[in-house]
Amino acid sequence: MTSSKKRKIAAVLVDRANYGRIKPVLKLLKDSNETELKLICTGSMLLDRFGSSVDIVKSDGFDIEEKVYIEVEGSQLVTMTKSIGLGIVEFTQVFSRLKPDFVIIIGDRYEVLSVAIAAVYQNICLIHIQGGEVSGTIDEITRHTITKLAHYHFPATKRAGEHVVAMGEDPKTVFPLGCPSVDLVTNATKKLSSKTLDTLGMGRHIDVKKEFILVVYHPVTTEVSSRNAQMRILLDAVKETKKQAIVLWPNIDPFSDRISRDIRSFRECNKGYPIHMYKNFEPNVYISILANAACAVGNSSSFVRDASFIGVPVVLVGARQDGREWSESVIRVEHRKNDILLAIQKQLSNGRYKCSDLYGKPGVSNKIVETILSLRPYNQKRLHYVS
Amino acid sequence: MTSSKKRKIAAVLVDRANYGRIKPVLKLLKDSNETELKLICTGSMLLDRFGSSVDIVKSDGFDIEEKVYIEVEGSQLVTMTKSIGLGIVEFTQVFSRLKPDFVIIIGDRYEVLSVAIAAVYQNICLIHIQGGEVSGTIDEITRHTITKLAHYHFPATKRAGEHVVAMGEDPKTVFPLGCPSVDLVTNATKKLSSKTLDTLGMGRHIDVKKEFILVVYHPVTTEVSSRNAQMRILLDAVKETKKQAIVLWPNIDPFSDRISRDIRSFRECNKGYPIHMYKNFEPNVYISILANAACAVGNSSSFVRDASFIGVPVVLVGARQDGREWSESVIRVEHRKNDILLAIQKQLSNGRYKCSDLYGKPGVSNKIVETILSLRPYNQKRLHYVS
Amino acid sequence: MTSSKKRKIAAVLVDRANYGRIKPVLKLLKDSNETELKLICTGSMLLDRFGSSVDIVKSDGFDIEEKVYIEVEGSQLVTMTKSIGLGIVEFTQVFSRLKPDFVIIIGDRYEVLSVAIAAVYQNICLIHIQGGEVSGTIDEITRHTITKLAHYHFPATKRAGEHVVAMGEDPKTVFPLGCPSVDLVTNATKKLSSKTLDTLGMGRHIDVKKEFILVVYHPVTTEVSSRNAQMRILLDAVKETKKQAIVLWPNIDPFSDRISRDIRSFRECNKGYPIHMYKNFEPNVYISILANAACAVGNSSSFVRDASFIGVPVVLVGARQDGREWSESVIRVEHRKNDILLAIQKQLSNGRYKCSDLYGKPGVSNKIVETILSLRPYNQKRLHYVS
Amino acid sequence: MTSSKKRKIAAVLVDRANYGRIKPVLKLLKDSNETELKLICTGSMLLDRFGSSVDIVKSDGFDIEEKVYIEVEGSQLVTMTKSIGLGIVEFTQVFSRLKPDFVIIIGDRYEVLSVAIAAVYQNICLIHIQGGEVSGTIDEITRHTITKLAHYHFPATKRAGEHVVAMGEDPKTVFPLGCPSVDLVTNATKKLSSKTLDTLGMGRHIDVKKEFILVVYHPVTTEVSSRNAQMRILLDAVKETKKQAIVLWPNIDPFSDRISRDIRSFRECNKGYPIHMYKNFEPNVYISILANAACAVGNSSSFVRDASFIGVPVVLVGARQDGREWSESVIRVEHRKNDILLAIQKQLSNGRYKCSDLYGKPGVSNKIVETILSLRPYNQKRLHYVS
Repeated sequence: MTSSKKRKIAAVLVDRANYGRIKPVLKLLKDSNETELKLICTGSMLLDRFGSSVDIVKSDGFDIEEKVYIEVEGSQLVTMTKSIGLGIVEFTQVFSRLKPDFVIIIGDRYEVLSVAIAAVYQNICLIHIQGGEVSGTIDEITRHTITKLAHYHFPATKRAGEHVVAMGEDPKTVFPLGCPSVDLVTNATKKLSSKTLDTLGMGRHIDVKKEFILVVYHPVTTEVSSRNAQMRILLDAVKETKKQAIVLWPNIDPFSDRISRDIRSFRECNKGYPIHMYKNFEPNVYISILANAACAVGNSSSFVRDASFIGVPVVLVGARQDGREWSESVIRVEHRKNDILLAIQKQLSNGRYKCSDLYGKPGVSNKIVETILSLRPYNQKRLHYVS
Repeated sequence: MTSSKKRKIAAVLVDRANYGRIKPVLKLLKDSNETELKLICTGSMLLDRFGSSVDIVKSDGFDIEEKVYIEVEGSQLVTMTKSIGLGIVEFTQVFSRLKPDFVIIIGDRYEVLSVAIAAVYQNICLIHIQGGEVSGTIDEITRHTITKLAHYHFPATKRAGEHVVAMGEDPKTVFPLGCPSVDLVTNATKKLSSKTLDTLGMGRHIDVKKEFILVVYHPVTTEVSSRNAQMRILLDAVKETKKQAIVLWPNIDPFSDRISRDIRSFRECNKGYPIHMYKNFEPNVYISILANAACAVGNSSSFVRDASFIGVPVVLVGARQDGREWSESVIRVEHRKNDILLAIQKQLSNGRYKCSDLYGKPGVSNKIVETILSLRPYNQKRLHYVS
Repeated sequence: MTSSKKRKIAAVLVDRANYGRIKPVLKLLKDSNETELKLICTGSMLLDRFGSSVDIVKSDGFDIEEKVYIEVEGSQLVTMTKSIGLGIVEFTQVFSRLKPDFVIIIGDRYEVLSVAIAAVYQNICLIHIQGGEVSGTIDEITRHTITKLAHYHFPATKRAGEHVVAMGEDPKTVFPLGCPSVDLVTNATKKLSSKTLDTLGMGRHIDVKKEFILVVYHPVTTEVSSRNAQMRILLDAVKETKKQAIVLWPNIDPFSDRISRDIRSFRECNKGYPIHMYKNFEPNVYISILANAACAVGNSSSFVRDASFIGVPVVLVGARQDGREWSESVIRVEHRKNDILLAIQKQLSNGRYKCSDLYGKPGVSNKIVETILSLRPYNQKRLHYVS
Repeated sequence: MTSSKKRKIAAVLVDRANYGRIKPVLKLLKDSNETELKLICTGSMLLDRFGSSVDIVKSDGFDIEEKVYIEVEGSQLVTMTKSIGLGIVEFTQVFSRLKPDFVIIIGDRYEVLSVAIAAVYQNICLIHIQGGEVSGTIDEITRHTITKLAHYHFPATKRAGEHVVAMGEDPKTVFPLGCPSVDLVTNATKKLSSKTLDTLGMGRHIDVKKEFILVVYHPVTTEVSSRNAQMRILLDAVKETKKQAIVLWPNIDPFSDRISRDIRSFRECNKGYPIHMYKNFEPNVYISILANAACAVGNSSSFVRDASFIGVPVVLVGARQDGREWSESVIRVEHRKNDILLAIQKQLSNGRYKCSDLYGKPGVSNKIVETILSLRPYNQKRLHYVS
């Protein structure tokens, strides 16, 4: 890469959350005249049953360089694992053709691990956003595994940055500048209309002038109990509050079919209950729903990240986010109906919390992009303890 | 896994070196009546051009549960990387069928990474032998990546154990008991006959009563210079010593064809020179050659590990092992003919060194197996800094 | 294979229809003491959204040797095609481990092609049931491609057998003994209870004492028009008849999501209409529904095959089965609401037809199994025109 | 595809022979302003041990759109079969990105089957050159399987065209215009210098002014006997003639390592014998060697095709080409040293034969390209017997 040439940067998105988080960074990279951005979409972004969020990316003005289908169907551990293998085979060929100077990835999903391996083993310099955090499920393992592969790191919090360095990464390669989704949240219109809500999903009418609860609940792949009726318990608790419920379908992880079945059976037994389901939202709409929710209930990482910044009261259910940093707006409970109900009621009566800058202040994306433009690609990492 | 049932342990071997290192542990596991050992062979072990070392494993009395071909041909970065993907697809199915309680892997090769992912993402407890060391080439990245995936760790040195813990692994899961190859070296017959040497490889007669030099040199995948005539320089230096040379072909890593070509061109230009090439040795024969060599020249990790224990003088060429611990028996030089020659001459005049127990004392394998038999399988790892 | 040894026969099932068709043959092979049956399930049989028909196979008393997930998610041409590739990789390993004397496959689905290639290229003798028929969609191409791979052929009709021979297969390897599903139909209880129907699927109550219409409609992968609202047109026509409707979800072929969406939108707009949807039926239940239907509407191959044998009036919509042989019980119409409606009305007023033995007479399965037991495995096929 | 737009044609080459045969057609397609040629190289073309013939393609002025590594290493049935699966996965993605109007393939190798499936299952119109011939080995099965997949056919002989039609292809899609390699042979300089020969391969000097024998011998994958010392027998027979020998290494098919070992052991035992080995030739050089050979011995399909056109005496050993059409210049013998020797002696004393136009007359390539430019892409094939 000579200084006169544009840097070719391949960014890979694997799901709706990935895009929501990194969108402001991608916009800046697209508009920079020092870079040539190659955007590749894969994973559940391409799947109709998750709302084909690739279409949102396109309608936001991005060109999609390539769509890469890698998910082996089945929602089992065995299919998740094969998908990683298939992803590596595919992305190896993609990067071998594109020969980017850098590959950018975000987060801790298994699909991201495929991308990381396909880049690093071909001596392509890997930039990872959001390493160093701690959580439950397989994401915890994936996140740190990717850290050991990546050449540059943009953790979202100070503590996450310290973790990355402690793991043996060279401090000169670690930039804890905050989470870029802060900029998305800052710039998003918080206004929400009932009409938008009714058009998009499936279910009963939601009146945005009345209180509603946002529910997002994903499986925990490392727990067998994940195969039990946890989502049903959660929804039963929500129902007791008599508030309207907006529910996002779970992600593609193993055992997500169990959660989907719980949602369907809840609906079947509670036909009059005002619940509305969504496959997907575009990032701005999601932020406006979160910003207007009376309470957010579930185990999405967005509830400790975006919700903290906005100050939405959160009831975090189960161990999926255990280990992450969160602000005072979060109450963590176990999978017991009564515990969940009491926590929601407490949060409803508390109302909005003060905004927290735990995950960064506005302007993060700009700083990340400026830093990226100053990086030099390199191959050979070495455990920093001995150098 | 109930206590009354035998533990099902799947061990996967990926190349000749893998087997040489772990053989004493496998023997003990095979003979234990608390375990059911499932031995799977993959990678270059199955390939004729690397001497099909799977046949040695069989003739040593092991049953091979399954042979899994995963190497995509080409000796390029792109084929190495695809091989990882193919390996994951294959091993996912193998483990899904076998449902082992534990998977055991050793070392830092890319094929081992496939095995690690196929196990961990299916919630199978992973035991890794030889993590925490530091070196060059892609192996360095692979080694620490595997550490972040593995549930239990058996590093070979005290320092390696400290590294594994520093990276955030729970100290209770880390057992720095030494390198099991120490037991292989201890038990191997050190007697070597010219006849054995002449039968096995290809090339000129080697008289074991005279001094000979052992040459093992592998590519460094992360260096472009690896594509230059480094092996030719090395062999030219060896030739100046006028000693006989025993040369092992390089491993399957990208750019190894460059090294093979260098060997062939050296032979073509030096038809009278007493050089003999080998695809592979069985572990015991390898140890006896190493033990009888006047000097070992190259960049094999065996030269800082097994050679230290035996006290063979070593000339380590290039950066491939930089960062590893070695004893006083090793001289590290750059890829310059004169530097290599001077170092060899110095080592020849020095002769044998004192044995070093840097990589463990006899009895390592027994301790490892005892520890393995006491382990409890678990899935959810968590960065230890925060627990 | 010596005569004293049992023949090891691997049979691979890829979907619910596959099983329904070959079940009587599998029963006989399982009970024979000359064979060792290895039953492998793959494709949509393993998927919850298609009713996990693998569970029906198990509850019928079969042991499942291995479950092989191969479907890449997306319902696109690109994912169907990748699934074939993934299937070959997987089945190659499975057959390499099992080393069967014969592999048995049935029908014309793309997953079956993977199995065929995995067997034939490893010199394993391939038996194909149901070659030589003519139809539309990609199945037509798959069917004849498999014929050119297979070593022995069991076509379902005389004409199909003639086609197989005409394509250059050795007549000595072609046994047009009929379709084994004839035995399933013969032996199935035709009694149907409303309770069974209500328990299994999702939707409104079906009163089996009143007339109902059975709808099964799959995509045509080779037609772009397949992406239009064809299923909606079909359901609108059915609705005009005011009869109850039993609908089976479409198979996993590309564009099937379009059909699913049509079904959902029909339900949304016709909430009071007595329609009930099913993911899957066990073979016997399916036959009893077909046998009790007032009319079968759609494009399933079962409608020209099983329905003919039973004498159920059929309205075949679109080109998917064009080229197949059918009896007088079938009316073929285009995708026009009025045409479909008129044809249904005509069939309703006509009622039951005479049974046809176009696809064989009871006893087919026995004859097939007897023949299989007499076959000699061989590898090298040769175009029969020149031998 | 509108008439105003250029047709996008993807051509895929899988080995040296593929290229040699189709080169004149590719040149014309490249120079036509009605087409946009996308040339993709895969298979053994990319491998150093087969002479990386991709480099010859480049130096002939072709742009390579993409290089796709698909060969799983091992030279076993299991690795050949996995390579087909990997090839499908890869080419599916390539075609999904390129969206060609047509894909062109040639011949009967297993790699070609991957390409065919990747195209046809994505509704891309497939053109196959050289279908309908009859031979032995797995190629025979592959060839006819591809015929059932392809939409348009360009067989090399009248009889081959008749076979394609007999197999149920629509006669309007079958164009038996001859083998395009005829144009290569016609235009190639037949002059051969010893210097060229000495520079390229490995072995002893060949004096082109004296008689030499060309040996090309590939494995027969469907025969277990292929694993025996057939090549050694052949070379021993050649040696008895005391003529110089030019030997091309075998292709990548399973058991080719057996043949390579035979060649090496022959050399080891016959150090003074004037034998020279080659990994690969560029097409023109190959033709000039064939044209100057006193006799061609082995089982290459080039010996019944190109050799016939030139009139070189051929001794065809074993069943690999059985079923193909050949001219009077060919003597077919079994794998017996004496039979081979007698046949060579007979051919040497006979000398040159009359040229045969069995595989076409000069101008074939032009006719093929003209026809291709007039084709209309379509998807849905149907067995022609019933239409």
